[in-house]
Amino acid sequence: MIEIPPSGSLFAPVARTGTGEDITALLTTPNVRIERIVSTGQASPPGFWYDQNESEWVVLLTGGAGLRFDSETNVRELKPGDYLHIPAHARHRVEWTHPSEPTVWLAVHIR
Amino acid sequence: MIEIPPSGSLFAPVARTGTGEDITALLTTPNVRIERIVSTGQASPPGFWYDQNESEWVVLLTGGAGLRFDSETNVRELKPGDYLHIPAHARHRVEWTHPSEPTVWLAVHIR
Repeated sequence: MIEIPPSGSLFAPVARTGTGEDITALLTTPNVRIERIVSTGQASPPGFWYDQNESEWVVLLTGGAGLRFDSETNVRELKPGDYLHIPAHARHRVEWTHPSEPTVWLAVHIR
Repeated sequence: MIEIPPSGSLFAPVARTGTGEDITALLTTPNVRIERIVSTGQASPPGFWYDQNESEWVVLLTGGAGLRFDSETNVRELKPGDYLHIPAHARHRVEWTHPSEPTVWLAVHIR
């Protein structure tokens, strides 16, 4: 018989232990890693760019964020429900996240 | 230069053309297929069980649903934010979806 893992909630409270973003791995397979990320006002450090070997599909579920790509001049404003596919090595940074509401992201990292 | 695809919204209106569930492929790679599914009261037909070759990670974002596994007697009630990993060949069916609100699912099918 196939065992079904228990369900969980993306909106479960964060077990807060520090001042950084809270990252919870929800599923890890050889090809995919699904994470919940909760930001509380964090932004990428000045001059920092993510440059990832894997592509990432991400959706913002609560709060809000400004995402900038190195190849673009504008900041993309993401509101709840907005999703985006970030190709591998597309340099990007988080300019801001919502100052008062938790910003819940669901990220799917794909090999 | 890496081209960044445009963003979209999980809560974008459904282009309704029939009476069935609305399924939109959001990302397709060799290993992963991400879909938005919008149910409006549908349930699996009596006696029907999904039996999938791929595993599926699914989260319910709006509305509600009752999910039943063949290996369990109870119906799992899913509310917004609830996620679940459905292993390949774990027979399951949707007993009900919310009768009046759209039920938006995000499904990640994994090879």
